[in-house]
Amino acid sequence: MAYRSAIPAGTGSYTNSQGVQIFREHIASFIQERDGHPAYPGDIFITNGASAGIQNCMTALIASDTDAIMVPIPQYPIYSALITLLGGRQVGYELDEDMGWAVSEKVLEKSYADATAKGLNVKALAVINPGNPTGQVLDREPLEVICKFCARHGIVVLSDEVYQRNVYVNNKKFISAKKVACETPGCEKLELVSFHSTSKGLIGECGRRGGYMEMHNICPDVHAQLYKLACSGLCSGVAGQIMTSLMVKPPLPGDLSYNLFVEEENAIFQSLGRRAAALVKGLNAIPGIKCQPAEGAMYAFPSIELPKKAIEAAKECGKTPDTFYCLSLLEETGICVVPASGFGQKKGRFGFRTTFLPPEDQLLEAIQGFAKHHQIFCERYTERKGHSNRGNKPLVLLPGPKERKIKFGCLPFLC
Amino acid sequence: MAYRSAIPAGTGSYTNSQGVQIFREHIASFIQERDGHPAYPGDIFITNGASAGIQNCMTALIASDTDAIMVPIPQYPIYSALITLLGGRQVGYELDEDMGWAVSEKVLEKSYADATAKGLNVKALAVINPGNPTGQVLDREPLEVICKFCARHGIVVLSDEVYQRNVYVNNKKFISAKKVACETPGCEKLELVSFHSTSKGLIGECGRRGGYMEMHNICPDVHAQLYKLACSGLCSGVAGQIMTSLMVKPPLPGDLSYNLFVEEENAIFQSLGRRAAALVKGLNAIPGIKCQPAEGAMYAFPSIELPKKAIEAAKECGKTPDTFYCLSLLEETGICVVPASGFGQKKGRFGFRTTFLPPEDQLLEAIQGFAKHHQIFCERYTERKGHSNRGNKPLVLLPGPKERKIKFGCLPFLC
Repeated sequence: MAYRSAIPAGTGSYTNSQGVQIFREHIASFIQERDGHPAYPGDIFITNGASAGIQNCMTALIASDTDAIMVPIPQYPIYSALITLLGGRQVGYELDEDMGWAVSEKVLEKSYADATAKGLNVKALAVINPGNPTGQVLDREPLEVICKFCARHGIVVLSDEVYQRNVYVNNKKFISAKKVACETPGCEKLELVSFHSTSKGLIGECGRRGGYMEMHNICPDVHAQLYKLACSGLCSGVAGQIMTSLMVKPPLPGDLSYNLFVEEENAIFQSLGRRAAALVKGLNAIPGIKCQPAEGAMYAFPSIELPKKAIEAAKECGKTPDTFYCLSLLEETGICVVPASGFGQKKGRFGFRTTFLPPEDQLLEAIQGFAKHHQIFCERYTERKGHSNRGNKPLVLLPGPKERKIKFGCLPFLC
Repeated sequence: MAYRSAIPAGTGSYTNSQGVQIFREHIASFIQERDGHPAYPGDIFITNGASAGIQNCMTALIASDTDAIMVPIPQYPIYSALITLLGGRQVGYELDEDMGWAVSEKVLEKSYADATAKGLNVKALAVINPGNPTGQVLDREPLEVICKFCARHGIVVLSDEVYQRNVYVNNKKFISAKKVACETPGCEKLELVSFHSTSKGLIGECGRRGGYMEMHNICPDVHAQLYKLACSGLCSGVAGQIMTSLMVKPPLPGDLSYNLFVEEENAIFQSLGRRAAALVKGLNAIPGIKCQPAEGAMYAFPSIELPKKAIEAAKECGKTPDTFYCLSLLEETGICVVPASGFGQKKGRFGFRTTFLPPEDQLLEAIQGFAKHHQIFCERYTERKGHSNRGNKPLVLLPGPKERKIKFGCLPFLC
């Protein structure tokens, strides 16, 4: 591809604040081909990762302390963090764990009604598909429910689709919220912004800070304000812009690199699929741990049963029970996971988010670590007949930190 | 330099949210060598250009609608834009044009007193050195005035030093605000953040989005909050981080690229110095245009005398007089400059900002364009004896747009 002619001033110059025109054309073609609906380069903003786009949209949406954004519970914490930063209000809509983290119209309507009854002005709803941290992949039907709900109440859909390439189960495929909006009667005027990133997928080029957002049905005045916001940061990094273009325009059959690219991509994809299944299976085999299938994304989000005494011990330290558990896991095994409380969860649920990015052999070892730790942790905090209460005094039963470092210390468990 | 060992995960991975440790060590060494005072990698945040650092600091500073930031008038509009975005209040301190855009203690104190009398809580003061758009280079004395003023009132210095390599006059050299703070009695506890960028200097690598901010005397709690803000954007682009490291650690004598680097850098530096002097001289030779020396940065910021009828004509179109003038300049000559009203200026002053980045031959042509346009513009809006009032009806006296395009249309006048 003639990058030299696309950016004649070179990669060291500022670009248009929405990004280089030809790269936005590549993105629009990719979306159009994926969805079967028109997409326009003028509606694309290339951003420093998806985060920068999400931040700009939220900045434009939240204008007062009664402006609210609906977010799934559990959710990737960028949403809660930005809402707090911008002085808005978060309205959670709980996903149904037992139904594979499903979203229901009833829950959406109840959350909305409760929020408006409190005087909040619900401006937008964030949907993360495939889910982070929950790993579910949304079919057309739940997306229709979301789109119709938002159209009915005149609120904007923020569709976080950064894991769209990461769908591992055969009975599901990624459908964009925009495609569903375009094909659902009643959603003709639905305002929607979708986000994509070079940091995930099968390339995982996080350090390039590439990504984009696409505006759909966003009125020109709002578009102009978003452009002004983009201008205040001049432009996104050109390396990230190039990476975004490469992501949406991979090698084609006949290209020199095509065969190698497909081979490498398939190997990564299949390995991720195997790892997702192995991790979930391994976690579900541990008594007291329960995990929904990781259909997509890069995470498992199991729930854990904790002994009453562990919950009390956590309280004494001023930690949430799952933070207390995750610190013990880190201490005892060197495995680093993120407490579920950081993502939001149903009251009384405890759990953690872990990824399946480590190589397969290390992942299998880690599953053993999860199992061994869970058993020891529960024993430590369970009063047993004929035994004294061990209280919260730590008992290091696994190898010490130094020995463990060899086994687990360098695992690239992304948090 | 062993970049492979500095970032073993490669350039495609997330880094520490403050930036790669070894690059921050390079930056700290550069600052320490430049200032003769200790600098620490832990105090450095590598950012997507200086803008991202400025935005994060302002976000941390402005917590309510009475929180105010003092900014020079004229100022680079990122400050006014961010203050508006974050819902704070701007308190201007006027620079004295006739004294070479000097800052005075009296003006600072008056601005501060007026602001506090209005109930504003002045949190920080921005200083831009070398000046944008004004091009002045601050000696030690005015920096001492600023540091003492801020120390006295317990407000943070935000020192925008992105043009520190761009000082063209022999009688001045760049001194950092931190150096002055370290060497001025009474400023031992002064809180200061300084900003640098890869987008300016002699490299002008804007598209890489490289830059850093250094915290000085910032308390650990605030540091932790700034780190949290940086984390919400994950990390700055690795290409920008590498460029920042290259900027602060240029080739050394004996390195293979040293001679070529020095030769190229000197040529750029000397040419910029010649262009700065030629532009200012050329502008001052035009009757009705007055311009202070461009000692540093990349801009001239002349004032223009406008006929009364031009001011009235501008009013009729709903434009500021200098916007009206700049649009005429663009229409008639193809030269694009920025109206001074966008930067803020004394009431009743009109002017524009122009850069001296175009190649020398094109710059000389542009100076002729400025002169010719100014004459025609003034004639158009001046009633003369024996002539009818030409009002605001445009008279295209210069070559038409098509012909002009050949001469001026492609001038890379950065705005």
